[in-house]
Amino acid sequence: MIERYTRPEMGVLWDDDHKFGKMLEVELAVAKAQAELGIIPRVAAKNIQQRAKFSVRRIREIEKETKHDVIAFVSNVAENVGEHGKFIHFGMTSSDILDTALSLQVREAGRVLMSSLARLTEALETQMQRHAKTLCPGRTHGMFAEPTTFGYKLAGFWAELGRNRVRLGRALDDLQICKMSGAVGTYSSQGPRVEALVAKKLKLKAETVATQVIPRDRHAEVIWALSMIGSGLERLAVELRHLQRSEVSEVTEGFTRGQKGSSAMPHKKNPISAENITGSARLLRGYLLSALENIALWHERDISHSAVERVIFPDAFILCDYSVHRMAVLLEGLDVNKKRMLENIESSQGQLYSSHVLLALVKKGFKREDAYVHVQRLCHAMAAGDHLKDQIKRDPVLGTQFKNSELDEIFSGKAAQKAIQGVLKKWL
Amino acid sequence: MIERYTRPEMGVLWDDDHKFGKMLEVELAVAKAQAELGIIPRVAAKNIQQRAKFSVRRIREIEKETKHDVIAFVSNVAENVGEHGKFIHFGMTSSDILDTALSLQVREAGRVLMSSLARLTEALETQMQRHAKTLCPGRTHGMFAEPTTFGYKLAGFWAELGRNRVRLGRALDDLQICKMSGAVGTYSSQGPRVEALVAKKLKLKAETVATQVIPRDRHAEVIWALSMIGSGLERLAVELRHLQRSEVSEVTEGFTRGQKGSSAMPHKKNPISAENITGSARLLRGYLLSALENIALWHERDISHSAVERVIFPDAFILCDYSVHRMAVLLEGLDVNKKRMLENIESSQGQLYSSHVLLALVKKGFKREDAYVHVQRLCHAMAAGDHLKDQIKRDPVLGTQFKNSELDEIFSGKAAQKAIQGVLKKWL
Amino acid sequence: MIERYTRPEMGVLWDDDHKFGKMLEVELAVAKAQAELGIIPRVAAKNIQQRAKFSVRRIREIEKETKHDVIAFVSNVAENVGEHGKFIHFGMTSSDILDTALSLQVREAGRVLMSSLARLTEALETQMQRHAKTLCPGRTHGMFAEPTTFGYKLAGFWAELGRNRVRLGRALDDLQICKMSGAVGTYSSQGPRVEALVAKKLKLKAETVATQVIPRDRHAEVIWALSMIGSGLERLAVELRHLQRSEVSEVTEGFTRGQKGSSAMPHKKNPISAENITGSARLLRGYLLSALENIALWHERDISHSAVERVIFPDAFILCDYSVHRMAVLLEGLDVNKKRMLENIESSQGQLYSSHVLLALVKKGFKREDAYVHVQRLCHAMAAGDHLKDQIKRDPVLGTQFKNSELDEIFSGKAAQKAIQGVLKKWL
Amino acid sequence: MIERYTRPEMGVLWDDDHKFGKMLEVELAVAKAQAELGIIPRVAAKNIQQRAKFSVRRIREIEKETKHDVIAFVSNVAENVGEHGKFIHFGMTSSDILDTALSLQVREAGRVLMSSLARLTEALETQMQRHAKTLCPGRTHGMFAEPTTFGYKLAGFWAELGRNRVRLGRALDDLQICKMSGAVGTYSSQGPRVEALVAKKLKLKAETVATQVIPRDRHAEVIWALSMIGSGLERLAVELRHLQRSEVSEVTEGFTRGQKGSSAMPHKKNPISAENITGSARLLRGYLLSALENIALWHERDISHSAVERVIFPDAFILCDYSVHRMAVLLEGLDVNKKRMLENIESSQGQLYSSHVLLALVKKGFKREDAYVHVQRLCHAMAAGDHLKDQIKRDPVLGTQFKNSELDEIFSGKAAQKAIQGVLKKWL
Repeated sequence: MIERYTRPEMGVLWDDDHKFGKMLEVELAVAKAQAELGIIPRVAAKNIQQRAKFSVRRIREIEKETKHDVIAFVSNVAENVGEHGKFIHFGMTSSDILDTALSLQVREAGRVLMSSLARLTEALETQMQRHAKTLCPGRTHGMFAEPTTFGYKLAGFWAELGRNRVRLGRALDDLQICKMSGAVGTYSSQGPRVEALVAKKLKLKAETVATQVIPRDRHAEVIWALSMIGSGLERLAVELRHLQRSEVSEVTEGFTRGQKGSSAMPHKKNPISAENITGSARLLRGYLLSALENIALWHERDISHSAVERVIFPDAFILCDYSVHRMAVLLEGLDVNKKRMLENIESSQGQLYSSHVLLALVKKGFKREDAYVHVQRLCHAMAAGDHLKDQIKRDPVLGTQFKNSELDEIFSGKAAQKAIQGVLKKWL
Repeated sequence: MIERYTRPEMGVLWDDDHKFGKMLEVELAVAKAQAELGIIPRVAAKNIQQRAKFSVRRIREIEKETKHDVIAFVSNVAENVGEHGKFIHFGMTSSDILDTALSLQVREAGRVLMSSLARLTEALETQMQRHAKTLCPGRTHGMFAEPTTFGYKLAGFWAELGRNRVRLGRALDDLQICKMSGAVGTYSSQGPRVEALVAKKLKLKAETVATQVIPRDRHAEVIWALSMIGSGLERLAVELRHLQRSEVSEVTEGFTRGQKGSSAMPHKKNPISAENITGSARLLRGYLLSALENIALWHERDISHSAVERVIFPDAFILCDYSVHRMAVLLEGLDVNKKRMLENIESSQGQLYSSHVLLALVKKGFKREDAYVHVQRLCHAMAAGDHLKDQIKRDPVLGTQFKNSELDEIFSGKAAQKAIQGVLKKWL
Repeated sequence: MIERYTRPEMGVLWDDDHKFGKMLEVELAVAKAQAELGIIPRVAAKNIQQRAKFSVRRIREIEKETKHDVIAFVSNVAENVGEHGKFIHFGMTSSDILDTALSLQVREAGRVLMSSLARLTEALETQMQRHAKTLCPGRTHGMFAEPTTFGYKLAGFWAELGRNRVRLGRALDDLQICKMSGAVGTYSSQGPRVEALVAKKLKLKAETVATQVIPRDRHAEVIWALSMIGSGLERLAVELRHLQRSEVSEVTEGFTRGQKGSSAMPHKKNPISAENITGSARLLRGYLLSALENIALWHERDISHSAVERVIFPDAFILCDYSVHRMAVLLEGLDVNKKRMLENIESSQGQLYSSHVLLALVKKGFKREDAYVHVQRLCHAMAAGDHLKDQIKRDPVLGTQFKNSELDEIFSGKAAQKAIQGVLKKWL
Repeated sequence: MIERYTRPEMGVLWDDDHKFGKMLEVELAVAKAQAELGIIPRVAAKNIQQRAKFSVRRIREIEKETKHDVIAFVSNVAENVGEHGKFIHFGMTSSDILDTALSLQVREAGRVLMSSLARLTEALETQMQRHAKTLCPGRTHGMFAEPTTFGYKLAGFWAELGRNRVRLGRALDDLQICKMSGAVGTYSSQGPRVEALVAKKLKLKAETVATQVIPRDRHAEVIWALSMIGSGLERLAVELRHLQRSEVSEVTEGFTRGQKGSSAMPHKKNPISAENITGSARLLRGYLLSALENIALWHERDISHSAVERVIFPDAFILCDYSVHRMAVLLEGLDVNKKRMLENIESSQGQLYSSHVLLALVKKGFKREDAYVHVQRLCHAMAAGDHLKDQIKRDPVLGTQFKNSELDEIFSGKAAQKAIQGVLKKWL
């Protein structure tokens, strides 16, 4: 029931028609290679190139009898080719075609996803630059910690996304595999020449050692990369959901005219895109699990992986692409409330700067532990309306340590802003 | 991409039309209850019953603007009802309708699945009775252990299936829940009376304490029950795959005229149904994972679970039902090769009875450890063609311990057969 | 590396000494039963009861040679018993002892956990009663929704905990199983009488149909119940973490004198208990996965489950018990800031009551959709300092609809408080 | 409860003493770097290098008060250093030390594991070369497919292992990260210079953009790599378990003098190492799941990942290393029964060569589908004792197609052997 999340450019790659199209592409490359190597007549290969075609309807019809979809596909293509049809799939086993075609499908799906990821990267970079200096509270444990900038927050997600793009790239690359080694991977029927030549024609790499299939660790790596993208998006989505909370209100997802947030509560504007992306990450982790269990097939292969892959390859690619795209749109339209960010900093009553005070005291010669106790004492004793800067000034021990200008500097956030500019410059 | 595994009787329960139908059923029950309680005019309720209808196309149209599917649904129904349309969804929040409708969908899906499970149970019982006395090797670690009967093997799966039916029943029962407590579960708009009355009309139980939604532990239990059924089927599927191995050949999945097992190897008959069921169990475990992560929603609810449930509820029910049904068909048509089972027992050279010899020796006064060493010594020294019974007779130590008739009795398998009959009688 | 999370009362149940102690308890019950049934001499059983003992050190010594821990255990006990030692483990297979002993261990661990759960339930009930009327914001999507009370929030977790206690109870009950049916579950050596009698002595139920082992769906159910408890605790932990956020500050985990929240930031008080419990839920879900994969053992059993269970049974019970206990302590010492809760409600500028206004308008004859548009319009146009009640009064359309006292009633939260009292009364 | 699986060279890396040792190594590098950069006095750094030490007992003592392990550690080291102790941890946040120390621990653990993997690779290569020509049945779906060689089977696992070593290498490399950017990753206290210099001293890379911690996608990749190794070992373990089945008997795990396979059945020799490794893979997949859920921490970090990592980092490394090592030992001592392999080939009655016959017929001008039907017909009609070669000779249609020498060549397995030699030469 993945329909809801299907963007057409990704969805089309996983329908039956496209799948059989990829299989035909492989069969044509095989026939061509076999003709060049003198395994089948050149005229046969030529006829196959010209006349080969299939109909999903007719394949399903034949499959009802054979209960084997590749045989049904080959029969349908062969009947369309006529006399030379017998040279289609010559010396091949079904998995040669299926697995190599899946490599092609994954390559295409990888391209669509990579382009969604590029758009998301761009959306992140735009906001990173726009908000490089936008001060806001940094939080650990959900508690005010030290100030940061909104652009710097995004930079962390941008860096992770960069790593995930590398991971996806590696995983896609590791599955750019052509496998033509026959029933148990031994090349018994025509040696490795056909595989090498077909791989070249399809711009794939030949498998090192196969069983009947391309080993499923390669496929698991691809699904893993998708689940890592999902979990990375989830981290960003959770951040955006936190920042949208009523009490925080630092950002808002776009809300269009006529949109309704709740059937009962007219005031509601909810972070539904970020929540949707959070949920999708759970599905992607589930698919990964199934992909990992697919690795330990029996002997030269059993077919238990097939039931799984029919579902998870389309669903994981479609869902991941949808999530990446939706996050890009979300970021592109994100409202950032700078004023509220400063108000939130202020609401910490200066405590966001406690570590800076601590450090300044140690520099002035305090033992670290003593300094800690003093600052903690002041912080934990503050009442509503108090501010740490004022408490320090009034404190018998600490009050004498600082000039006013020093305290102003510490509580301005400029140190953080400046340090962040320096770091961001390295990456943007 | 679950289409491939969708039986129509299950699939129809999860399409949009049916889902909105369940939502309408809930809205109608609400209107009726509210009229009876004097919350809305009786004439309004009457008009709603008569005129309420929806069109999926029109709902999708309105949803484009509102970006909220329940509001779109309610608007569409209201415009069809006319003047009294405003009393539909009166004081309700979307989740009241959505979650209660999901409870109804799950009830229906549970019934279809229960009926598939009943068929599978029957298929197991038929084969259990037929093969109650059919001797075959029992194996632990994949190694010959002691004889058992094929009917008794099946009895183990039948007992597990029985437990899983109980688990499913409990899980379904725990989700027979009606939730009408409004936006944050506090009944603030109309008190608990409406919920109680609607629950009665829909033959559901009222939720104890809800948030905006029925808490997701209830839903996770349902998906867990499905994944337990999947893992139980997997155990049986793995057994049947083992027994079909070329070297074992004790059973065979039905193979129809015209069916082809491999595009390269014409001799092949493969256990593809059992393999398919094995793979499905992996998917079901993956869905469980996603369902468990859905539990810890934020505060009175966030909507991250929705993206997950749109996928896993249909997909898990459809896949589980398909697997149960396919296993029933497999068992109904299973060929059992009794002769081969006896040959396989024979091929153990009597070692399948080594524990019986051990026990007999201890009864005759041997120290357990000494007896063990003697029997192990004979077993591990056997060459091709040897038989443990003969080796015992020839052994200087053990040969004098047994009369021939004693040994014949031990190596006949009758003890196992008889014990098994006694046990099976208790259950069938 | 579960040591960190081990409470002694639970940890002691999973050490080697205790495990062998349970195995001995089972062997003694077997000997007694076999003597009563005339299978072994009464004097042997008597001697076994009196002299049987073991030493973990000695067992490990013997195991080095036999590479089989049960045989090593039996040998050690037998050598301590002397002459009648040969009647220990008479006609048994290792799994008869191991699995039945595990049932006993799980029963004991279940009791410890149940008592931790009882303490947690009590902690919840105390706070529920104390804060039954403590108004606070209800939130959906992390956004202000409608008012609720803190006691009612807790009631939701209390209800879920109640369901999880039932689930654990069922799961423990389903594993109160005695299995004495021998090598492949066929009772070939001594019939079902011994199992029935041993079960009675140990207050367990006899397995319906076993393989060599008690089928692992029973064990998976126990681990599932632990993971459900974990996920339920996680939901509560996430709630408490949200409520402790700096911007929310509605509750605080106890912070002891001398405690330090951060090595860099002296002001920090962090929700570390709730965060720890959150992490533990992830581990418990991971263990569930392993437990589910343990179900599909080969034939009458392979031993792959053993490597898993050695780890997950102790670790999952220890971790779950630790989390339950830690949550109980957290709740018992929880600081609840009622004042801040009211301030947070106030900070919604009356929007927490928008659904109540909507409903009142419909009651006054507005079409639901029109009322929605009006209230949404006012809410979305509010500036800082505005309040929905005032906006309504000033509004040309809505201002004329309400008397001031009506508005005061709506915006008082009394409706929610009253409704909640009614519901809580049912459960407490 | 991972003790059972702990090899000392790996275990020692994860005990408390070693962990604090790594933390000290980091603190010392920080102090040195800060002295070089003029941040702390050179004499302080010198004194720290000379006097810094810790005691786990004392740390635990201080922790009881502070409830913060890093603060306890720093206090203990500082009290040992004396006056200059205040310059330890200067401007640091706990996670700077903890995460960088974890990077060092993982590097060391990675080295131990890599060396176990090297031993396993060597064991595989030795057997691959020894059995490059050892003919045995290839199987798909658990059914006889085509002949292969035992060395070629192993080559497939060797190739996968090679990929997994690359994956582990990448993952380790991606976590060779030094993070010194302070409380929220902004370098607010001392700029990026310290991080850069400490990274250089520790031979790590500086983090690109951190939060309070090194982002957890890096850690998840490491655990993923371990789980991939586990799943790859599982595939090999499952293969070896199949080949050890009583009915197959092509290989045997070493069985030592005095070893006992079963307490009830003296004849048993079981594939317990392979089964143990199978189970371990399930645990590793479970740990992966927990690691993935650790990614989406809140804001600049919450501490929920810590509870998880305390368990899964030691446990996953220890278990993975143990499994790799055990598999190496298993392979080094594996008995390979060549004679039985040939007997098993023979038992297929020639059907293992059906694809070769099919191909030969197509080469002779048969339409593929017709050839298929003929060969399938002969195969499915064979009775016990028949052989496909003889059936072909006798067949009215096919009998005339082949010379005897052609058939002998086809049914010799030489084609497979020769093709395999060619392929293996490329890789060994």
